[in-house]
Amino acid sequence: MKNFDLVGIKIILISLLFIISISNAQDNSEYLSAKESEPQNFGWMQGSPPPSDRILSASDGSFFQFPALRWSVMHMREFLPTQNVSRGLGVSSQLEYALDENIDKLTFFPWNSQTPMTWEASLWENYTDGILIMHRGKVVYERYFGELDENKVHAVMSLTKSFTGTLASILVAEGVLDESKLVTYYVPELEGSAFGDATVRQVMDMTTGLKYSENYADPEADIWEYSAAGNPFPKPKDYKGPVGYYAYLTTVKKQGEHGDAFGYKTVNSDALGWIISRASGKTVTQLLSEKIWSKIGMEQDAYYQLDGIGTPYAGGGLNASLRDLARFGELIRNKGNWQGEQIIPVWAVEDIMKGGDKKAFEKSGNNQLKGWSYRDMWWITENKNGAFSGRGVHGQAIYIDPAAEMVIVRLASHPIAGNAANDATSLPAYQAVADYLMSKN
Amino acid sequence: MKNFDLVGIKIILISLLFIISISNAQDNSEYLSAKESEPQNFGWMQGSPPPSDRILSASDGSFFQFPALRWSVMHMREFLPTQNVSRGLGVSSQLEYALDENIDKLTFFPWNSQTPMTWEASLWENYTDGILIMHRGKVVYERYFGELDENKVHAVMSLTKSFTGTLASILVAEGVLDESKLVTYYVPELEGSAFGDATVRQVMDMTTGLKYSENYADPEADIWEYSAAGNPFPKPKDYKGPVGYYAYLTTVKKQGEHGDAFGYKTVNSDALGWIISRASGKTVTQLLSEKIWSKIGMEQDAYYQLDGIGTPYAGGGLNASLRDLARFGELIRNKGNWQGEQIIPVWAVEDIMKGGDKKAFEKSGNNQLKGWSYRDMWWITENKNGAFSGRGVHGQAIYIDPAAEMVIVRLASHPIAGNAANDATSLPAYQAVADYLMSKN
Repeated sequence: MKNFDLVGIKIILISLLFIISISNAQDNSEYLSAKESEPQNFGWMQGSPPPSDRILSASDGSFFQFPALRWSVMHMREFLPTQNVSRGLGVSSQLEYALDENIDKLTFFPWNSQTPMTWEASLWENYTDGILIMHRGKVVYERYFGELDENKVHAVMSLTKSFTGTLASILVAEGVLDESKLVTYYVPELEGSAFGDATVRQVMDMTTGLKYSENYADPEADIWEYSAAGNPFPKPKDYKGPVGYYAYLTTVKKQGEHGDAFGYKTVNSDALGWIISRASGKTVTQLLSEKIWSKIGMEQDAYYQLDGIGTPYAGGGLNASLRDLARFGELIRNKGNWQGEQIIPVWAVEDIMKGGDKKAFEKSGNNQLKGWSYRDMWWITENKNGAFSGRGVHGQAIYIDPAAEMVIVRLASHPIAGNAANDATSLPAYQAVADYLMSKN
Repeated sequence: MKNFDLVGIKIILISLLFIISISNAQDNSEYLSAKESEPQNFGWMQGSPPPSDRILSASDGSFFQFPALRWSVMHMREFLPTQNVSRGLGVSSQLEYALDENIDKLTFFPWNSQTPMTWEASLWENYTDGILIMHRGKVVYERYFGELDENKVHAVMSLTKSFTGTLASILVAEGVLDESKLVTYYVPELEGSAFGDATVRQVMDMTTGLKYSENYADPEADIWEYSAAGNPFPKPKDYKGPVGYYAYLTTVKKQGEHGDAFGYKTVNSDALGWIISRASGKTVTQLLSEKIWSKIGMEQDAYYQLDGIGTPYAGGGLNASLRDLARFGELIRNKGNWQGEQIIPVWAVEDIMKGGDKKAFEKSGNNQLKGWSYRDMWWITENKNGAFSGRGVHGQAIYIDPAAEMVIVRLASHPIAGNAANDATSLPAYQAVADYLMSKN
């Protein structure tokens, strides 16, 4: 990672916090196990004051190094400026429970493995912090590990993108946002950038042609500049780059053609956050509160991390509770209907569920998710159940299987920043639960 | 204010944020009026992005300069690291309403004035953001101004001290904390500092003899060093001072004798925060959540601002909603009983209500609050109604009048940092409402 000398402290710009990549790493054998790395084994930030070797900080980057990140994902606001996503003041909606003890014993074959694994073992394998399964609107499984409990929120990272995309889809359905317009219709400042001649729809589906690398292995990758721009702390003295996410977006250059290939690049999500803010006159934070968080009886407020000028990080800054993410998943599974009331337009969800351009996805070169597509910042499996998912880089997921009438929400803090590291023991596990639930009656 | 050169930006250490003083200034005629200074007239941080002259920042100090501070007091977490005070997940308690329209027209004489003022006029005079009056457990008056509404929280600043003192009193009542012990019994690190030979009780009542100045007019005052220690941002390169509130406290030198005179010094509150954290094994944040916030049906979570190593600022870092502060006020007025259930020990509240050492208070030289005392970090009027109050530096207050069965909570953002600037039009106004309510039947 690129280091800046900031007031005598080496500031490691923790890209994981500000932008998300797909790592090629798939092997976690070099790391402490999920059990070994549980925060209570280390006492991060415990004590008044904590012992000096247990103090974590955003400015020296220590808070997001494994295994400390397993604590920090539930404490992001204690390191960073954040903005509240209000649930309002009403009574929270009750979740019905019909817990099913059989789920722990379900088995599946991890990709490229002949050895079956149980559902329960997969949770440890994937450094799960919390997981909740809903079937036909009832909670059939809920479990917390390590530092997480039902009173806490957790960084969902790139899962944030699916919220941004859903908000955009809602605004399209409402006629507030025209997906066929050029980006510059809403954000003239993006004239001259790669986004200048892209349509809103191309941004929503990440089929923009951008000269922008999210390769973590490359110290010259653009992600580091993006990270530096979005870092909310004072800039280093020699810093010459853009300040804030928006300022960075105006510098992104074009590469290739728009509409041709899917390319998973976080800058699209922040560009979309900018677009929907301009179209609606409301921040992403306000939109999420008004359209969703205050409408379905959320149990807790959520929050966004901010850049240095107060911009909510639409590409990866949301923090929310396990149960509230499940409420959101159920809202989407029911095409915007919540307990009999239509909260968001049916069209907004059907537009996600119909999926994206499979050929464009194939061109992205993602060899692991063959046959998938990407639409409205959701990952579409294109499997026979019509499953689709929001995904965060440390294993966070909302996985919605319409045929199985199932929603799985997982919060996790896998040591490897990249879903390639956990998909092999996650996606077939989700399918095993779906098959089981469909077989129940 | 003292400036540090931090990464090329002049960092103004905003003392108002980190420590609290009583200013001698009493005249606000040089400032924009309450109406003129309302945040909506300026559009602070509005827009995506906001216009450059409307962007506020903690690192350059702009966020806490009047009139911008009138916006920032409701948005502290958007600038600073914060820690959640959980209300739990339960249903909030209902406040009963019996609104009384006569209150606005009540008149009183401001101190040293022959011209009567109405209650309503006093709210504008004092840059009120929100005010709520409860009488016999019912809301008789509730009003919001400017940027505040019932969904938001507000920085209460030194009112935080009364929460710290109440928590300490609860722990004494529970036998967890021994007020007669030396501070070093709980915090050996304070050996060698002024607190080393003080008792816990002396800290609770701020009768410690400390070489510590909170005079804002003096650029060499100790408050600036305290502010620098508590500042959560990376320290300037040439910074040689202590890091964090606790580290600073170990450097405070003695002056005079303990137990002799009251001296309003914020460091006592943070020392007490440290003491109660050690005695209980829980942070101030955890204590407030466990003892109070999760027990009386609060509507919203509260939060504390933190220093750079995660210490909640027990001297001035609490942020909470108007209604939840009123619930707390009612809990105290009812000696710890909430809707029939004893939530905190009666003794803990009676210890506050019995007041402190009036002679010690007199020696503090406070010419404005003659005859008052200070106990458990509450201000005791010693009037015939037995009223007592928590007070924040920009006019925030919880004012409890047992005889009138009244609780007033005010949130405010007065341009002058010091209650001397607003007492003359606040305390007699509160008394007028008390007299009126007592006369009702």
